[in-house]
Amino acid sequence: MSYLITGGAGYIGAHVVRALRQAGETVVVLDDLTTGVRARVPEEVPLVVGSTLDRAVLDATIAEHGVTDVVHLAAKKQVGESVEMPLHYYRENVHGLQTLLEAMAAGGVPRFVFSSSAAVYGMPDVDLVTEDTPCVPINPYGETKLVGEWMARAAGKAHGISTACLRYFNVAGTATPELADTGVFNIVPMVFERLTQGAAPRIFGDDYDTPDGTCIRDYIHVADLADAHVAAARKLAEPGPVRDLTLNIGRGEGVSVREMVDLIAEITDHRGVVPEVTPRRAGDPARVVAAADRISKELGWEARHDVRDMITSAWAGWQHHHPESRQG
Amino acid sequence: MSYLITGGAGYIGAHVVRALRQAGETVVVLDDLTTGVRARVPEEVPLVVGSTLDRAVLDATIAEHGVTDVVHLAAKKQVGESVEMPLHYYRENVHGLQTLLEAMAAGGVPRFVFSSSAAVYGMPDVDLVTEDTPCVPINPYGETKLVGEWMARAAGKAHGISTACLRYFNVAGTATPELADTGVFNIVPMVFERLTQGAAPRIFGDDYDTPDGTCIRDYIHVADLADAHVAAARKLAEPGPVRDLTLNIGRGEGVSVREMVDLIAEITDHRGVVPEVTPRRAGDPARVVAAADRISKELGWEARHDVRDMITSAWAGWQHHHPESRQG
Repeated sequence: MSYLITGGAGYIGAHVVRALRQAGETVVVLDDLTTGVRARVPEEVPLVVGSTLDRAVLDATIAEHGVTDVVHLAAKKQVGESVEMPLHYYRENVHGLQTLLEAMAAGGVPRFVFSSSAAVYGMPDVDLVTEDTPCVPINPYGETKLVGEWMARAAGKAHGISTACLRYFNVAGTATPELADTGVFNIVPMVFERLTQGAAPRIFGDDYDTPDGTCIRDYIHVADLADAHVAAARKLAEPGPVRDLTLNIGRGEGVSVREMVDLIAEITDHRGVVPEVTPRRAGDPARVVAAADRISKELGWEARHDVRDMITSAWAGWQHHHPESRQG
Repeated sequence: MSYLITGGAGYIGAHVVRALRQAGETVVVLDDLTTGVRARVPEEVPLVVGSTLDRAVLDATIAEHGVTDVVHLAAKKQVGESVEMPLHYYRENVHGLQTLLEAMAAGGVPRFVFSSSAAVYGMPDVDLVTEDTPCVPINPYGETKLVGEWMARAAGKAHGISTACLRYFNVAGTATPELADTGVFNIVPMVFERLTQGAAPRIFGDDYDTPDGTCIRDYIHVADLADAHVAAARKLAEPGPVRDLTLNIGRGEGVSVREMVDLIAEITDHRGVVPEVTPRRAGDPARVVAAADRISKELGWEARHDVRDMITSAWAGWQHHHPESRQG
């Protein structure tokens, strides 16, 4: 088995590469390095600098490395940007995937793991989101992820490709400081940035219909998430019929934004900081928490890391990438 | 105003061209003639033989003809084929539209009318399908139409393009014999074909939960449908903010397959023929009937032709295209 990891120089992709290699697998990374970082790819791992939009590069990579399994993480992933530049998101996320699936069908690649998102659910009005909760995405980013699932499933059925669509909930933490998320689009690094600038962390709305009025999310450690990819790929490789899995990857535990901010303040030694509450952002659901039993049943996978682990590891990563913050 | 009609050499597209010209508009047709027919395009109408996947052709056509309004009908539309060849459908229907929207954004084209379908609703479990009925497409064809709506709306919002997504119910009939549907994928020509071959018309399942056990659909005359495009385009061109319309185009009247077959037999002088009832086809909903009041309210459009008109005109069209059937 030979794994092609698209987007393998990204935050999550690099963790998937790490987990697969620790599991003894051979991997090759395809990344266009627009947001991916070359240093995240170990020297021993072949890195093809190219885009999933480039069919020739895909064909050559699949042939040269005898690719049997594709884990597709290459995509644009900022919700706000997707509203501003929807055609860019459709081109990269949908047409990129289309080109990849065409190359896989032509090259006879039998297994596909797709990086999907809880964003496919939109504003779910349920306590626990199951894989059967209706998918009503509310922004182009979420749309492109749902389209991707549809396309992967349909192509899988037509071309005999076993497929796993993994719907990530809120990813945080890092396996090593080097692989940390260096963006500031997720709550943990966003709060780190404010705290290390001496500013109050922001809470976007405290008037939601939740116990403390702030939004509730389900956080998953990126190392656990990466392990779920390994488990999914192994399941697809078991003898048997062509498979079609759709799985939430969350912990099934809701944590409020206020709880998260308090815990970050505690762990980073900023206890007592008073968050600044600003108005709600458009499109933020009150509560998005996974029903996480299907993946446990199907793959035997369980999350091992709690929110404290995520913040502690992410903080080490933040300090690694922001040396000035270590003096604070 | 100058209209670009993609797929204008198709059955519906040619009717849209006809209706726009009768309304005094200037039109240019883009059609790759894979299923479109050159003879359907009047000699006075410029025909660009090309694909919506070809950005250079789109740019040149928009610039040369000063296009202000695009009516986009070019697409693959067979449900069964979409299951067999999903990537082909995604390429043609989704990437074709993406390329067109990119060309429109770049060329500053301000208005867009999109040929969508009741297939976006999937298996609706309601008496009358409103535009707010959840969209849960159940095959790649329906998926590509829903994705198209999403993409058009998002691109419209980001680039200031007023957009109308028209969800066609079951289209039948013809304005003139020459423009008739020459395929046999819809019930009316399908029954014509069987009858003129001396075979019993087929009914796919009579054990549905409907009064006579056969599926119920909402039929719309293609000339009425074409008029709805003119009305939608005119609405988009009214002064005011950027618009975003989503409209069912049906008559709001359910007709069962058995009623339809009986009426076709009567009109074509095959009274007394006994249909052959075969098992259900996968993916056929029991009942799909439009709530048709939103379009009436928004555009002042009303269907003028009933099912009898559809069959009578379609039969004249069938006989025109199948001279041998006139002797029967």
